[in-house]
Amino acid sequence: MTYDRPKRIRFAHCDPAGIVFYPRYVELFNEVVEDWFADGLGVDFHTLHEDMRLGIPMVKLEVEYLAPSRYGDLLTFRLHVVEIGNASLQLEIGAFAGEQLRVRGRLKIVLADIDKLRPVPITEEFWRPKFAAYLKQPEQK
Amino acid sequence: MTYDRPKRIRFAHCDPAGIVFYPRYVELFNEVVEDWFADGLGVDFHTLHEDMRLGIPMVKLEVEYLAPSRYGDLLTFRLHVVEIGNASLQLEIGAFAGEQLRVRGRLKIVLADIDKLRPVPITEEFWRPKFAAYLKQPEQK
Amino acid sequence: MTYDRPKRIRFAHCDPAGIVFYPRYVELFNEVVEDWFADGLGVDFHTLHEDMRLGIPMVKLEVEYLAPSRYGDLLTFRLHVVEIGNASLQLEIGAFAGEQLRVRGRLKIVLADIDKLRPVPITEEFWRPKFAAYLKQPEQK
Amino acid sequence: MTYDRPKRIRFAHCDPAGIVFYPRYVELFNEVVEDWFADGLGVDFHTLHEDMRLGIPMVKLEVEYLAPSRYGDLLTFRLHVVEIGNASLQLEIGAFAGEQLRVRGRLKIVLADIDKLRPVPITEEFWRPKFAAYLKQPEQK
Repeated sequence: MTYDRPKRIRFAHCDPAGIVFYPRYVELFNEVVEDWFADGLGVDFHTLHEDMRLGIPMVKLEVEYLAPSRYGDLLTFRLHVVEIGNASLQLEIGAFAGEQLRVRGRLKIVLADIDKLRPVPITEEFWRPKFAAYLKQPEQK
Repeated sequence: MTYDRPKRIRFAHCDPAGIVFYPRYVELFNEVVEDWFADGLGVDFHTLHEDMRLGIPMVKLEVEYLAPSRYGDLLTFRLHVVEIGNASLQLEIGAFAGEQLRVRGRLKIVLADIDKLRPVPITEEFWRPKFAAYLKQPEQK
Repeated sequence: MTYDRPKRIRFAHCDPAGIVFYPRYVELFNEVVEDWFADGLGVDFHTLHEDMRLGIPMVKLEVEYLAPSRYGDLLTFRLHVVEIGNASLQLEIGAFAGEQLRVRGRLKIVLADIDKLRPVPITEEFWRPKFAAYLKQPEQK
Repeated sequence: MTYDRPKRIRFAHCDPAGIVFYPRYVELFNEVVEDWFADGLGVDFHTLHEDMRLGIPMVKLEVEYLAPSRYGDLLTFRLHVVEIGNASLQLEIGAFAGEQLRVRGRLKIVLADIDKLRPVPITEEFWRPKFAAYLKQPEQK
């Protein structure tokens, strides 16, 4: 399963060249992860942080900028899980305009206790099956 | 030679966890490259874009988040050139708090004609020696 | 008629105090105006700028911050037109959480020719009736 | 006395029209106030929030956009205090390019206890004389 989220490129995302200013994509990825937690996994960030006392700090980020986008463009951000580690999670997010892949991001995050500032194991009881539902299938590669 | 640029982490860079919101580092890298062009290479972005009709679109970005930073922290952003291709340039930027490396970025940019939207060779006449002055030396590795 | 637009407050909008960082509301107002032009008036910003060669520079902005918002809050941004001048337009945008008004903005923009950088009269042929449809009624005051 | 702070307009501040995106000025005002607290008043935001448990929420903001700025422009942000209330403070910040006033902001902030979320009186013991040193003189008007 993938999590698909359409997002309209806004005037505010674009630079004097009229195309998306590249750091804005990293903000958009953050929005997609926030949306995925709320809508896909059923745990919004407020619940995650305030009730569960968990956070998902970014460990590593890779972004490939393949084709420019302009304001008004409607992109579909498609997220899936690439790897589930002991306490870490690797995500891939592609931003598509129709069939064209404009930008691809790979994000490695860690599930962490925000009080003890320590990684938290991704156990079978709650998180692992939730994340596994979005695991990329071999045939999709 | 490296290009070193101190930057104070601001309140506006930080998220509800009190630490730098990770997309802000990408904006800070953009500032460092802008500063390097103006102060290090002697070509400010206005001259680059308007007079020389050149741009430096981002092709690939990698960021490793090694330790959190808080507002008020003074970081030194240290930039050097890792590789000079035919029309592309690979940069490395480390954000240090004293000796501690907090964040490391690798940026691959391309020198491009902004009217024809085409890569422009990095020639010996102007750009190559400028970039080469900041090339990372083997012993630094 | 008012233009109503729900917007979820995001993690990225909030500061270390956990509430919306006040400049983010100005960005949100910009989004609401962009959405209003596209959805309410039927002229998206791309058409406005590229085809009609018009822009709407901000002349004056007033924002009252009445109550804090946190990420996860769902606000309704309610826009209406307060005054239509010769070439200028005064808008009011209220951000509501249910019945509670959290933030109120007043924006004075000008319709301008982006090539000649000159104000353009708001004529009966096109813009005036469009804007007038969102004019605040006396009884609403 | 005024607090003067030069700031270079950056590529990241500008929109597809090539001029400063108007919400960015509000972020720049926030930076100027942060700089003023640290450099002018001798209390950086970290000390203010963490040690003194005080905050300065924005109550009202007014911005007049008088002339556009482009990236590369060097603006001087000139701050002074307009009025000191019981627990509130009114500031004026002008952004000048040489003698030309490009943007003028008026900010009303409140000194507040961030634990009790209540206004804190601006007493003679500490804050009032500090703020008063930047009070606009009648002849300056």
